[in-house]
Amino acid sequence: MASVLGTEPYCSIARSLEVVGEKWTLLVLREAFRGRTRFSEFTAQLGIAKDVLANRLATLVDSGVLEKRAYRSEGERERFEYVLTAAGGDLLPVLGALAAWGDAHRPTSFSPVTTLVERSTGATVTLALVASDGRVLQPGDVKTITRGD
Amino acid sequence: MASVLGTEPYCSIARSLEVVGEKWTLLVLREAFRGRTRFSEFTAQLGIAKDVLANRLATLVDSGVLEKRAYRSEGERERFEYVLTAAGGDLLPVLGALAAWGDAHRPTSFSPVTTLVERSTGATVTLALVASDGRVLQPGDVKTITRGD
Repeated sequence: MASVLGTEPYCSIARSLEVVGEKWTLLVLREAFRGRTRFSEFTAQLGIAKDVLANRLATLVDSGVLEKRAYRSEGERERFEYVLTAAGGDLLPVLGALAAWGDAHRPTSFSPVTTLVERSTGATVTLALVASDGRVLQPGDVKTITRGD
Repeated sequence: MASVLGTEPYCSIARSLEVVGEKWTLLVLREAFRGRTRFSEFTAQLGIAKDVLANRLATLVDSGVLEKRAYRSEGERERFEYVLTAAGGDLLPVLGALAAWGDAHRPTSFSPVTTLVERSTGATVTLALVASDGRVLQPGDVKTITRGD
């Protein structure tokens, strides 16, 4: 996505898209959040071409979103697994926002498959726009302000 | 993105990415949230190729994210503008999540350029993970649950 960033080096959205904006990347990350770590797990779940997956994993490792770790199963050669870093974990709201929009505006006959829950309680977590005093706002209550406008 | 959706018709993240996952689309939407509506405004701001922009706008109109409206300036031929629908407005959390991650993990010497504010007060709005009882959670407090895991 170098050409996107080239035009907009000051835009944090463009900088994020440089890391996660390529086709398949956010679905690889969805699997990482499910606890999948191995190349074979990603290909089995996503049906993604191996060369594309290798490219996406390399970008995510280089960007500090995934950490590449060696492991060796009994009697097998050394392999690598890919584990979310703290920076990678902070992408959860991006996936949550995409999931919420898909559930609302691209509904299917399936009920939601992936939901966000609190680790300690298992209760459902929502992604919300929150005012400075803690009130939850609707998208229509909020606008973007861009410097220079 | 048909091949992504083909493998995962039940995944709301994949369904959202079918609409907004192509290169440039989220930056076009960023401009729409800034109030830009005209083809010439999008090309001037983004430096995007005209054929790519036409393709992305067509996808967004077909998906109900943008509405295509005719307008005519004094003495000019009829032209079209592209205006966010209610469904398009609901993509604000996706852009907000990408901006927040970029500010946190892809910092530059620039300070944040685009911020979310409440329309009625102008006060800063944040995107937060919220528990069922209203507590604001950190990403590390939250996990995804996928049916079948």
